[in-house]
Amino acid sequence: MASQKASIPKGTRDFSPLEMSRRNYIFETIKSVFKNYGFQQIETPAMENLSTLLGKYGDEGDKLLFRILNSGDYLRGLEAETINSESIAKISSHISKRGLRYDLTVPFARYVVQHRNDINFPFKRFQIQPVWRADNPQKGRYREFYQCDADMIGTTSLLNEFELLKIISDVFSLLSLQVTIKINNRKVLAGISEVIGETGKITDITVAIDKLEKIGKNKVKEELLAKGLSQKSLQLLDPVFQMEGNNEEKLVFLASYLSSSATGMGGVEEIRTLMNYIEMDPLKSAKIELDITLARGLNYYTGAIIEVKSDEMNIGSICGGGRYDDLTGIFGMPDVSGVGISFGADRIYDVMMQLDRFPSSTAKHTHLLFVNFGENEVKYILPFLGKLRSMGIIAELFPDNAKMKKQMNYADQSQIPYVALVGENEIAEGKFTLKNMSTGEQQLVSLEELISVLTS
Amino acid sequence: MASQKASIPKGTRDFSPLEMSRRNYIFETIKSVFKNYGFQQIETPAMENLSTLLGKYGDEGDKLLFRILNSGDYLRGLEAETINSESIAKISSHISKRGLRYDLTVPFARYVVQHRNDINFPFKRFQIQPVWRADNPQKGRYREFYQCDADMIGTTSLLNEFELLKIISDVFSLLSLQVTIKINNRKVLAGISEVIGETGKITDITVAIDKLEKIGKNKVKEELLAKGLSQKSLQLLDPVFQMEGNNEEKLVFLASYLSSSATGMGGVEEIRTLMNYIEMDPLKSAKIELDITLARGLNYYTGAIIEVKSDEMNIGSICGGGRYDDLTGIFGMPDVSGVGISFGADRIYDVMMQLDRFPSSTAKHTHLLFVNFGENEVKYILPFLGKLRSMGIIAELFPDNAKMKKQMNYADQSQIPYVALVGENEIAEGKFTLKNMSTGEQQLVSLEELISVLTS
Repeated sequence: MASQKASIPKGTRDFSPLEMSRRNYIFETIKSVFKNYGFQQIETPAMENLSTLLGKYGDEGDKLLFRILNSGDYLRGLEAETINSESIAKISSHISKRGLRYDLTVPFARYVVQHRNDINFPFKRFQIQPVWRADNPQKGRYREFYQCDADMIGTTSLLNEFELLKIISDVFSLLSLQVTIKINNRKVLAGISEVIGETGKITDITVAIDKLEKIGKNKVKEELLAKGLSQKSLQLLDPVFQMEGNNEEKLVFLASYLSSSATGMGGVEEIRTLMNYIEMDPLKSAKIELDITLARGLNYYTGAIIEVKSDEMNIGSICGGGRYDDLTGIFGMPDVSGVGISFGADRIYDVMMQLDRFPSSTAKHTHLLFVNFGENEVKYILPFLGKLRSMGIIAELFPDNAKMKKQMNYADQSQIPYVALVGENEIAEGKFTLKNMSTGEQQLVSLEELISVLTS
Repeated sequence: MASQKASIPKGTRDFSPLEMSRRNYIFETIKSVFKNYGFQQIETPAMENLSTLLGKYGDEGDKLLFRILNSGDYLRGLEAETINSESIAKISSHISKRGLRYDLTVPFARYVVQHRNDINFPFKRFQIQPVWRADNPQKGRYREFYQCDADMIGTTSLLNEFELLKIISDVFSLLSLQVTIKINNRKVLAGISEVIGETGKITDITVAIDKLEKIGKNKVKEELLAKGLSQKSLQLLDPVFQMEGNNEEKLVFLASYLSSSATGMGGVEEIRTLMNYIEMDPLKSAKIELDITLARGLNYYTGAIIEVKSDEMNIGSICGGGRYDDLTGIFGMPDVSGVGISFGADRIYDVMMQLDRFPSSTAKHTHLLFVNFGENEVKYILPFLGKLRSMGIIAELFPDNAKMKKQMNYADQSQIPYVALVGENEIAEGKFTLKNMSTGEQQLVSLEELISVLTS
């Protein structure tokens, strides 16, 4: 067979040992914090039935699903059909019944309903798996990428929101990244539109407020007028444009401004409760900022809205989440409230790379390489190699009796810090010549000394 | 929208927290051993180009590939085509250009060729990822399952085979499973067919020898005659049927029997070298058995053949592998020898379940639950909760001020070993009522005492 060019599909990636080591550092950090808070891991299959996926992500989302061809003779039953614009829907539904998961939230909802009798509610689950989207690939946007989600389901307590803020703070503190957690509440946004008499325009209002800093008050007002808001509503909105100060000052303003809206006051109360919890048990290093322009996931979040930004680099959101009141209704299990967050591992990776925050240990693996001088030396070395490994020391023996230069090159390029040379003389003396690869220093040592150098 | 039944595609699985904990125990054990021997992790995308996958697994394998529909308007350009038996191939190649990976070996070969300039050879890589096959699902056979592969590439040294045997032995020793590693060598099989003058019939001969125990010598001979072997060949084969004894005795026999075949003697020498290495640094608990009927992967293995069976349960192979001389040739990089093994995580899971070998710790997660008695108590507890977590103690606070019975039920069903009750009295005294959930015993303790109980 002719040889083929080795390549992978557009928008997908291979991960080298070094990249894996760095990615695992992020995943393991997130996982350890999730576990520390009592979250339990689940996994769901890469494929879901299309009936589970379709209609959950809007028309645009449906188009971005990767569909899997039915197996076997998938066209059977369509024979003699002519392909034309009318038959396409029929052909599509005939030839594909499964798709790759698009996110971890819909599969989680499906999981909860399917296994409701085995789940001990409230259920704190985390899930770290890849998802697939047939998006146009571009810098930082891939067709296969990992999501790291934690959700609590079956409880409306604000302690859950607090724990998620703590988790975010713990994760970024462990990763040595300085972040700001922005919080908002859908009820505050609803309250604002109620107070100005424009209940139905919550999205337009939020989107416009979001642009305040960028385009200025006058342009925002123009935009809102164009969207059909009255001059009176705009006047009533004016104090919101002026709002400033720290979180407490903002809360005082909102409590007064929203006093006529029960919904709005509910949102203020929720934020205040969260702030009180944080006072009792402060966040490690993350800053927290009440930001009423934050409108992430306005279509499904019903309470808290959370978004995390790096203080050190301008790259958009690196984690986000919020509360949703009815995740599982579509699968026949109504009124299950939940709250969750999702870490964006790829963006976190980019931030860590840019800021050089990966510990140098992520670039290292093997501690010691034995040079291969031939069969006699190999047989002498084997028991020591086994002993070192059983002590947790990652040790290799170069497999071939290759030229010294090649073996040292291997150690060098693999960033192996120590090389052991065992030839006739060493065997006679029962010792090892240990070379420190960064200083070039060599010393003749006993096994005990060698172990002590490698475990120090 | 009408509610939908929650279900997953045939042959796929959800994994519950308990199952994940057990699966992770297996994966982490394998991973830790791979790393201990200096193997480095890579990952490849779930999707590969069909040009990479097709033709690598035989016609049967091609049929078992999951193909992904091209995204966007995938039928465009086929309009006005009539679907019939002649157009099917055209339609198939038009609508699908990618598939889900079928194993980890072909993607690894593709990876090596694509990244050859960045790889430091010899390359010791491991990879733990799911693969997909459109097989007919049945007990123990799934359409999505994990493979755990380790391969060394770019070296022909038998030290590699030895290390793989050590890895197998270490893994099953850590998992507390007693196993036998069967080894064979393709060159021995080739030697046998040479010696009896039937060089072209190596597969038929091996398949027949494999049935010796089951159907007896006479039936095996009948079968070989039917396959076209001469009576003289059968007579020459007779000593192989009689072969018995321990590994050393078998080697002595083979060295004499195969003395006229250079290939066969090469195979004997390879096995002897491996046995010598094992003498220098013995396997932990696994038994090793030379088994010339072992013919796994005869189509691609060129040297060592390895297969692992449980001594305690009859379930088929739980790990296997071998040496292949030309993995990457098809992608334009010839003469790269490699040797690898693959652990069957699903079967190992079944064995561990059947024999009850999972440590009880895999069924536990949270160490301590604080009962929720209301807002005042919650605020009092929060700082302690944070302190315990920062010490690595997995602690939860029940999120809602629910009835005591419900909260205790949650602790019970979640197998949480300790519950802390903190009400007015405890707050006044600065102490905690700590309940041991397995004994029912309650005691009033200080924070230090509580920590000491939980960390003991």
